Amino acid sequence: MIEIRTDLAIENRELYQEKNKEEVPGVEVEKEEEENYVVTRVKILDELGSRNLGKPKGVYITIEVPKLKNTDQDLKDEISKLLAKEIKGIGKNNENTKTLIIGLGNWNVTPDALGPKVVDRVLVTRQFFVAYKKDKDETVANVSALSPGVMGLTGIETGEIIKGIVEKTNPDLVIAIDALASRRMERVSTTIQISDTGINPGSGIGNKRIGLNEEYLGVPVLAIGVPTVVDAATMINDTMDLIIGSMKNVAAVGTEFYSTLEQVSSEEKYDLIKEVLEPFMPNVVVTPKEIDLIIDDLSIIIANGLNMALHHGIDLEDVNRYIR
Amino acid sequence: MIEIRTDLAIENRELYQEKNKEEVPGVEVEKEEEENYVVTRVKILDELGSRNLGKPKGVYITIEVPKLKNTDQDLKDEISKLLAKEIKGIGKNNENTKTLIIGLGNWNVTPDALGPKVVDRVLVTRQFFVAYKKDKDETVANVSALSPGVMGLTGIETGEIIKGIVEKTNPDLVIAIDALASRRMERVSTTIQISDTGINPGSGIGNKRIGLNEEYLGVPVLAIGVPTVVDAATMINDTMDLIIGSMKNVAAVGTEFYSTLEQVSSEEKYDLIKEVLEPFMPNVVVTPKEIDLIIDDLSIIIANGLNMALHHGIDLEDVNRYIR
Amino acid sequence: MIEIRTDLAIENRELYQEKNKEEVPGVEVEKEEEENYVVTRVKILDELGSRNLGKPKGVYITIEVPKLKNTDQDLKDEISKLLAKEIKGIGKNNENTKTLIIGLGNWNVTPDALGPKVVDRVLVTRQFFVAYKKDKDETVANVSALSPGVMGLTGIETGEIIKGIVEKTNPDLVIAIDALASRRMERVSTTIQISDTGINPGSGIGNKRIGLNEEYLGVPVLAIGVPTVVDAATMINDTMDLIIGSMKNVAAVGTEFYSTLEQVSSEEKYDLIKEVLEPFMPNVVVTPKEIDLIIDDLSIIIANGLNMALHHGIDLEDVNRYIR
Amino acid sequence: MIEIRTDLAIENRELYQEKNKEEVPGVEVEKEEEENYVVTRVKILDELGSRNLGKPKGVYITIEVPKLKNTDQDLKDEISKLLAKEIKGIGKNNENTKTLIIGLGNWNVTPDALGPKVVDRVLVTRQFFVAYKKDKDETVANVSALSPGVMGLTGIETGEIIKGIVEKTNPDLVIAIDALASRRMERVSTTIQISDTGINPGSGIGNKRIGLNEEYLGVPVLAIGVPTVVDAATMINDTMDLIIGSMKNVAAVGTEFYSTLEQVSSEEKYDLIKEVLEPFMPNVVVTPKEIDLIIDDLSIIIANGLNMALHHGIDLEDVNRYIR
Repeated sequence: MIEIRTDLAIENRELYQEKNKEEVPGVEVEKEEEENYVVTRVKILDELGSRNLGKPKGVYITIEVPKLKNTDQDLKDEISKLLAKEIKGIGKNNENTKTLIIGLGNWNVTPDALGPKVVDRVLVTRQFFVAYKKDKDETVANVSALSPGVMGLTGIETGEIIKGIVEKTNPDLVIAIDALASRRMERVSTTIQISDTGINPGSGIGNKRIGLNEEYLGVPVLAIGVPTVVDAATMINDTMDLIIGSMKNVAAVGTEFYSTLEQVSSEEKYDLIKEVLEPFMPNVVVTPKEIDLIIDDLSIIIANGLNMALHHGIDLEDVNRYIR
Repeated sequence: MIEIRTDLAIENRELYQEKNKEEVPGVEVEKEEEENYVVTRVKILDELGSRNLGKPKGVYITIEVPKLKNTDQDLKDEISKLLAKEIKGIGKNNENTKTLIIGLGNWNVTPDALGPKVVDRVLVTRQFFVAYKKDKDETVANVSALSPGVMGLTGIETGEIIKGIVEKTNPDLVIAIDALASRRMERVSTTIQISDTGINPGSGIGNKRIGLNEEYLGVPVLAIGVPTVVDAATMINDTMDLIIGSMKNVAAVGTEFYSTLEQVSSEEKYDLIKEVLEPFMPNVVVTPKEIDLIIDDLSIIIANGLNMALHHGIDLEDVNRYIR
Repeated sequence: MIEIRTDLAIENRELYQEKNKEEVPGVEVEKEEEENYVVTRVKILDELGSRNLGKPKGVYITIEVPKLKNTDQDLKDEISKLLAKEIKGIGKNNENTKTLIIGLGNWNVTPDALGPKVVDRVLVTRQFFVAYKKDKDETVANVSALSPGVMGLTGIETGEIIKGIVEKTNPDLVIAIDALASRRMERVSTTIQISDTGINPGSGIGNKRIGLNEEYLGVPVLAIGVPTVVDAATMINDTMDLIIGSMKNVAAVGTEFYSTLEQVSSEEKYDLIKEVLEPFMPNVVVTPKEIDLIIDDLSIIIANGLNMALHHGIDLEDVNRYIR
Repeated sequence: MIEIRTDLAIENRELYQEKNKEEVPGVEVEKEEEENYVVTRVKILDELGSRNLGKPKGVYITIEVPKLKNTDQDLKDEISKLLAKEIKGIGKNNENTKTLIIGLGNWNVTPDALGPKVVDRVLVTRQFFVAYKKDKDETVANVSALSPGVMGLTGIETGEIIKGIVEKTNPDLVIAIDALASRRMERVSTTIQISDTGINPGSGIGNKRIGLNEEYLGVPVLAIGVPTVVDAATMINDTMDLIIGSMKNVAAVGTEFYSTLEQVSSEEKYDLIKEVLEPFMPNVVVTPKEIDLIIDDLSIIIANGLNMALHHGIDLEDVNRYIR
């Protein structure tokens, strides 16, 4: 079985469809196309769907914005608002919700620094609720935020740190932000995934071992992720498929050449790529040269989206002017 | 009562002595003078000593190195080794000890960033003990480390975060690193304080509200601190005392001038300074212009000291060459 | 003669007035008081004025905004607009002007990093004028920008680097941004000085040796500076003056006490302070603990002011939304 | 003609050999293999060699260290010493040489930040030679250093800035450090190229337009470069070649399948890749996920090498202990 590395539900679905030429059983998909973006909602309905996509039951919302890499402030603002709408749409928070935002990843590794950068930019308010002993405020909700680092920096499982904090501070909701792996370079910097299943073992760039989900933490966990890296072997495999596909179009059906190409496009090809690459670049994971800028831009878009989604009295003008 | 702001036990003792012209009852002091440094051990023996110095019972070791601000690598190495010796001398750790190092303070505020910078540079090993399920190693001890941030960044009391982590990871010892306030500018960058009492409410630049001590965390807590700021009113007050003192030397005893000066040197003077300064610079806390360099240098000295104190198979050559 | 260290023309004037109890001959002063700020225009008219204030002939505009340290975005925007107006008012630039912005100072020393941080945030456009071979644009002017570092980092006099670049790129105007020294802590973070005399030897935190002025560079030089440090001896001296002043109010005129205080308030006092401080903190220059935040805030205010002053088609909404 | 993007002379040679199955006419190659590294000296002897490799006449020394990505301090030290030896071997500097080190690239883009990071770590001494008006010193040579930024940051051609500084400070030698593009991912982080031809238009990540060479600057220019990025299309093309190569080994010579593969391995393949990739990732340039660490490590290795190569009284122990 080909181990295409991806953390995106829409890519798991693509892979299933490429192989089985049918919609995934146990999964419901809705698509909403707008001028600047496409929102795809993949709902994994049951155990069967979960097995087929290799992901827990739940909703996976993907926002794809092909032009997001351009420096268009209006588009960025539009996506922040959309993100806020989608987060609120999941229905886990309202103005009384106590939310803990967790920025996963390693701040010393640029493609893995998305979570910590978002945490730097969210509006944290829990301290005022504690100081003034209040439960509710007219404009802001109770929000705390932390970047726990990664095991290589702290020696401690990220999940243990968060579980400890959840037990001490009793939030109603955890939102975890993480950098993801995609199979396609073009999705890096243009895609945001939101899901209500939390973060599960093995996902994310850092490959967590403990899941950050409701089962483990005892409160609902939203996960917001952005693909920032691509596995080199996966990228090469997919490109070869595209090339072979375009060659097949010109090769006459029934000739030996056609069947050769047909044959090449099998699962063995991926193993061959792996084998060929191994001596030169074992497990190379790549990221675009412009990753610093991408992480910066996306962390602002996501932080603005969170600030609007969580704090009922805060709108776009506020986040652009008052919040760093 | 004059509220000279200081976190150093030797300065609390100085203040007591200035006022009472006697050694502090309930306190034992030992001094060891070497060519390059002076080590002062202030032991607060009982409740009386504790009240007199306004600090919990315990040992406060102060290392003063007047020439530390110069760029002399040999001296820095000497102090790292001395620090390692003093930490080991307190007797809370051996090669089987599981230690959690906590870097207190705000990484965005240079004079408060000492703790986080030390944590960046300590050798963290707990993950290997966990992965290989071992209790002991030939060269390294079990060390984890974390910078929890400050309440303004996370919305969560630092103490709560640490307590949560202690409960999840069960260390035998916590070592907390913090930036301190001194009454004297010349101590900034030349002084390190080690104590076995942990960090207590109101101390440190960030003014913690919950203590990080054995009582709260359930395990022994060593505190390592370096003064990085001075309260402006305190600095001016002390300088005026020095000036008045030097003027008294030339004024004839018994004259009205002498008694005027005598009079000026009272407690009211400090209030006067406060009153005069208030409209212009309320609660101004200052730091030397070179604070970035000072924090950098001291974090390396302390991290090297910790690496040698905790890991039995690591010496000075290792920390200078292999550890960032 | 007392060497109060200051780079602010309004403080040189204060010092002259304190000593001579008269307005400075050869100098014209205008003051404009608004709700949130005071603008003082000190014009040094001739050689006499220049000698009296120890500064070259020219205009020194000081904007004082006592509440600038608060986090009030509207006030910050108001000051950016005021700064833009004052820069344009000097009359050295219009939409055809080619401007070179120079960020003086050391980016590794927080209180000296103002210039480099402003340069990071100004809108640089010269490359487009060069690429499209055009002289004029509908919305932006021709702006280039560089932070040359300090001699300790490069081994090269800052002036030589800039002179070399001016000769190669032929700007019509140089604007140099620098961190300054003030005699008063309360001016740090609340004051901006603009002058048409450039930067002259010995001024600024870094103490340049070559002047950055029209005489040396061959084009007009505007200097924009913000005080970020205070000499400790100066601060203590001024505070003692305030205290002695307030004590004199209560001491009966004619008594020995009064004349003692009178006497103390002489020039010898400053020498005494210097002498007393010398062994403990020779040439200590201090900065507020919050300097990182201050530098960040002020660099945005100044960069926004420059972007509006230089680019005719750019207004406040643009700088807050589109320019990092 | 296939436009494989590379800045490494050894890769230009590989490409020539792949196509022409012969050693490059006009080029001399020497290879020195040691346990931990291979040094290849490509000498372009004349116009013919220059045309064949698409690079100016001169010497291109490549140090390849496959294990450099591991964290082995002894190996890093070995490579710093080797680099120092090779730089001295070129014969452009001695203890009287005044050297200007230029760190090319954009400090905000991690894979392009190698040059600025090296400049941060070299020992700069020119200011002392100027201050004490001396020509020679017992332990150090006259070294200055600057990172001019890129045109997008300053609006000024990098070459113009450097030319201006060269004219003002008259160095005898310029050494330019730059990040390069390679065709192979495995060379990123394991390869250093030194050449006596300077930096020529179109090379480096930033694609300079003006050459930094003796012709333009009037003094000899050494270039030290490290590949930090790979063009995605190039990487995929090369991997496909490897795969097709390994498939050919198993396909029977003479069959249609063999000739199909043969055919695929033509120049059209690269165009096909480009065409297929274009809509998805036009001009994508990738870098390994660990690029921050790679840049950090390599900048230390190169700075240490430069410090030993330029300063006659400085050895490995000094650079590891005294120089940041």
